[in-house]
Amino acid sequence: MQVSKKVRELLAARRPGHSLDAQFYTSPEIFDLDMEAIFARHWIYVGVEPDIPEPGDYFTVKLGRASVVVLRNDDMELRAFHNVCRHRGAQLCNAHKGSVGNLVCPYHQWTYDLSGKLIYAEHMGEDFDPAGRGLKRVHVESVAGLIFVCLVENPPEDFAQMREAMSRYLAPHRLTECKIAVQDEIVEAGNWKLVMENNRECYHCVANHPELTVSLYEYGFGYQPSPSNIEQVQAFRDLTEREHARWQAAGLESAEIDELDSRVTGFRTQRLPLDKAGESQTMDARVACQKLLGHLSQRNLGGLSFWTQPNSWHHFMSDHIVTFTVLPIDADHTLVRTKWLVHKDAVEGRDYDPANLTAVWRATNQQDRELVEMSQRGIADPAYEPGPYSPYTEELVEKFAGWYVGRLQAAAE
Amino acid sequence: MQVSKKVRELLAARRPGHSLDAQFYTSPEIFDLDMEAIFARHWIYVGVEPDIPEPGDYFTVKLGRASVVVLRNDDMELRAFHNVCRHRGAQLCNAHKGSVGNLVCPYHQWTYDLSGKLIYAEHMGEDFDPAGRGLKRVHVESVAGLIFVCLVENPPEDFAQMREAMSRYLAPHRLTECKIAVQDEIVEAGNWKLVMENNRECYHCVANHPELTVSLYEYGFGYQPSPSNIEQVQAFRDLTEREHARWQAAGLESAEIDELDSRVTGFRTQRLPLDKAGESQTMDARVACQKLLGHLSQRNLGGLSFWTQPNSWHHFMSDHIVTFTVLPIDADHTLVRTKWLVHKDAVEGRDYDPANLTAVWRATNQQDRELVEMSQRGIADPAYEPGPYSPYTEELVEKFAGWYVGRLQAAAE
Amino acid sequence: MQVSKKVRELLAARRPGHSLDAQFYTSPEIFDLDMEAIFARHWIYVGVEPDIPEPGDYFTVKLGRASVVVLRNDDMELRAFHNVCRHRGAQLCNAHKGSVGNLVCPYHQWTYDLSGKLIYAEHMGEDFDPAGRGLKRVHVESVAGLIFVCLVENPPEDFAQMREAMSRYLAPHRLTECKIAVQDEIVEAGNWKLVMENNRECYHCVANHPELTVSLYEYGFGYQPSPSNIEQVQAFRDLTEREHARWQAAGLESAEIDELDSRVTGFRTQRLPLDKAGESQTMDARVACQKLLGHLSQRNLGGLSFWTQPNSWHHFMSDHIVTFTVLPIDADHTLVRTKWLVHKDAVEGRDYDPANLTAVWRATNQQDRELVEMSQRGIADPAYEPGPYSPYTEELVEKFAGWYVGRLQAAAE
Repeated sequence: MQVSKKVRELLAARRPGHSLDAQFYTSPEIFDLDMEAIFARHWIYVGVEPDIPEPGDYFTVKLGRASVVVLRNDDMELRAFHNVCRHRGAQLCNAHKGSVGNLVCPYHQWTYDLSGKLIYAEHMGEDFDPAGRGLKRVHVESVAGLIFVCLVENPPEDFAQMREAMSRYLAPHRLTECKIAVQDEIVEAGNWKLVMENNRECYHCVANHPELTVSLYEYGFGYQPSPSNIEQVQAFRDLTEREHARWQAAGLESAEIDELDSRVTGFRTQRLPLDKAGESQTMDARVACQKLLGHLSQRNLGGLSFWTQPNSWHHFMSDHIVTFTVLPIDADHTLVRTKWLVHKDAVEGRDYDPANLTAVWRATNQQDRELVEMSQRGIADPAYEPGPYSPYTEELVEKFAGWYVGRLQAAAE
Repeated sequence: MQVSKKVRELLAARRPGHSLDAQFYTSPEIFDLDMEAIFARHWIYVGVEPDIPEPGDYFTVKLGRASVVVLRNDDMELRAFHNVCRHRGAQLCNAHKGSVGNLVCPYHQWTYDLSGKLIYAEHMGEDFDPAGRGLKRVHVESVAGLIFVCLVENPPEDFAQMREAMSRYLAPHRLTECKIAVQDEIVEAGNWKLVMENNRECYHCVANHPELTVSLYEYGFGYQPSPSNIEQVQAFRDLTEREHARWQAAGLESAEIDELDSRVTGFRTQRLPLDKAGESQTMDARVACQKLLGHLSQRNLGGLSFWTQPNSWHHFMSDHIVTFTVLPIDADHTLVRTKWLVHKDAVEGRDYDPANLTAVWRATNQQDRELVEMSQRGIADPAYEPGPYSPYTEELVEKFAGWYVGRLQAAAE
Repeated sequence: MQVSKKVRELLAARRPGHSLDAQFYTSPEIFDLDMEAIFARHWIYVGVEPDIPEPGDYFTVKLGRASVVVLRNDDMELRAFHNVCRHRGAQLCNAHKGSVGNLVCPYHQWTYDLSGKLIYAEHMGEDFDPAGRGLKRVHVESVAGLIFVCLVENPPEDFAQMREAMSRYLAPHRLTECKIAVQDEIVEAGNWKLVMENNRECYHCVANHPELTVSLYEYGFGYQPSPSNIEQVQAFRDLTEREHARWQAAGLESAEIDELDSRVTGFRTQRLPLDKAGESQTMDARVACQKLLGHLSQRNLGGLSFWTQPNSWHHFMSDHIVTFTVLPIDADHTLVRTKWLVHKDAVEGRDYDPANLTAVWRATNQQDRELVEMSQRGIADPAYEPGPYSPYTEELVEKFAGWYVGRLQAAAE
């Protein structure tokens, strides 16, 4: 891949343990590079199987300038295609979601079946050969209901290992038997990497997230030990150990796996105790949905978190799932799409109240948006220079930054 | 003219019979080139004489970054000037339309007469010579009331032939004796060439233009013959022949002239039968204005269409005229200005209802806007590659694209 | 400083006595250069001491992409810092104005005292050294209450001479004992230099500023002598001489100092008679505030004007002060911030009516905005070419343009 000398030098000059140079957050050239080297060459989380439960259901998603249609075919398999007609290039599906028999271009009615084959094109003459005019395929895979796509011809092969590991963790929550109760989209005026870095630490939580920290123990995300907190930190460690034992005994994988910067398809998972009632990420730490997921019968299962490089995180509780995808728009704008899922048989108003279900993360998303935006403003200032990460609370930020720099360097080779 | 190696290669690589490379629709560099090589060096349709019926009447129009004032002087002649004061460069006329005695700069009252001569400039001292400080002239010509301007010093000379040919076709409709009943402006989020290409075919009409296809025969714009349509296509050909004979006998030129890609000032014309009542492009195919144009006495005169390269089309019927000008804003935005004209003595409410007059093209413009915008979105997608034109229904698109590529190549020489 | 060959040639080609080449007003590259060579290397007027009367009061201001916090410390001294946290670069102060004990970053609570020293940063580990992590200082100075900042390490030294000269002129108006009665911000769609050039002449006043010219003598800003005006011009000169004598006798410096293009820190001042009642720049030329400034006892003190390069002007009258700062946003947008100040003990409703106080300049600012915007439109037109300045009424425009070109050339050396 073509990477300018200037960017190669910036990558080489990156100082570990420090935030990135401003240009990584502000330069349109580097944004284009991110789209090509990161978002076109890695597995990108884009949605969930409950987005498209029936044959012919589809959704569209933008990865940089590329639009992808993800659909379920008549054999209930997932398929994904570039959302571009092979005639004069019109965008085929112009809605976010829908249901179709075939994919028909609105412009001149060129028609593709759900395998992407061109099956109808009027007026094209006797010599026209529809073979070779099918839709361009995009790789698509599901991890226990979480849908990932990959644009590049030969996707990273280590996806299989992530799927294998994570399927064990996620299976009991039965995501494929859920429905999307609420979906939010917010556009943050910041580079996508600031959104990710903000997600990779909770150093900012105490002062900024009053709703989230009702149920989230701050000790779960790194802490500098000191005489004044040594007892609480130890108490949290003991609690985690006890809960892990209890959950594992109930068949729920809980131990930390951290492969954030040691693999191409970087990820991390851990089931963490929740504070107070210990049931769910809600305003009272109790379940938001009376009908539990899958065959779960216990409410206090903590929160199973799953983080992926480059663009997602997910929290699985006994009663609901919250899942986030980060979609870059341009160098200083990013779309964050949040979905709250509950059991598909749960009844709104009886089993759950959408306002209660979304209260914590809706507030937290807005707070994070403000933090990301003040970071973008400051980093765009000529006075900015990379500063040091905390060795205690920003290790995962460092892993994100290190993974990112390494992946760009690999693409530049 | 300076044209980069990259653009020269793109031009040379263009595959006839296929849509253009994405960069022709998305690159700001090529947009600037279009403005210089196409819009500054060709005759551009900008408005009609009824826009400025009286001495001192003017209108302004933007051609890329250039603003032009078109006016009628005291001898009733058309004049056009660059809309820039020769003092410190303020834009002289800041309204779309108006009426003036002289052109007075609002900033420091430098005053130009309607021939562009500087006739007043205070405080400039004894040595100041107003000669050589007049407004810069722009070429302006009328074809039976349709106003064209050309920015370049030596405009294409073949304009005269287009005028001679078209004057015979247009004269009976007496555009100069019309008034503008309604004018619309819409901004389409697409490159100007997509707006033009969309205009140059009716392959998309059946599925997208229910209002327009009330009166428009789909066979009039190319059709792949097949056993199932051979009779209708032949019937349309017979009808056209009969109607041409009738119209020619009534002194109305009707035969097709197609010089779209064989001349610098490319154009095409043809009078085509209309369906149903056959009178006009309205929702019931009947005239929208009871007072017919000029001295016309028959209502069923079909639709005389006139298409020009690079930026206009016009439909002349017995009762009204619809005229369209396409004005590029930037690589992915285009202004489309539509005017509906009726006889100047027609009375609104008695002779015509503006809602009825505009119903077909107002709806059609919005539908075309959506098609252009989904094309722009798809073409900006990295997955887009040029696709094949229909040899039956997209021949005029190919002529537009071929003319465009040829004109850029000529400018690059 | 790195300046491209193209810009060096444009600078060298500048024709004295003529407006600048279009690119100086439209090119993003030259805008960036302006920010670096002009706004980062000169003393920039940003606000007044009454913006921050108490310890801990601060305001923020944007100079190009740089945000600066100006504050008053506990010793009542002015301090200024780059508004960027040294941790991960978040913008520290996200409001325009406020009051603080320390500067606390909202992201992770890194805390700086009012001298910029980092005094608190949690979780950073035992090896973390807060020294060298303080906020980056910005030079800040006051001229009789007008606050100037300079971003460059070694600011122009001739600021001291301007302060010395101007302090004598300004002192009697006691700006530091005023309060801000009203503040306006308008964004003009024009390059900052057009805003400045418009300010540097009154050639446009008669036709455009009916409110301002109630009190402003047009003869005060240059006039081409002619038989028809020779008597009035002479009468104005005589009046000015008489009034200067009267004001000087009362201890009020009045004589013109013009150092606009003869120094790095260019400035100009003059006390000019006002027309009609001669008291103030109001709709009836009478004072807008019954409580006069400082210890002034006479109302008819004309208007003491103070103009600075590159970005401000100020009018000091017996009853109120109007002060303007011009802050570039991008090549074609500029923020103009206007403050009206009265004696801090003046009571709204009793001593002054804000609508009356602001009537003249609020109207004038809007008129100037329109003039600037029509200039920007015309200059962006390819037909624009630099035009001649009046030798009588545009001498100060020429001094601005000459100073600007000289300063860019100095930076390019």
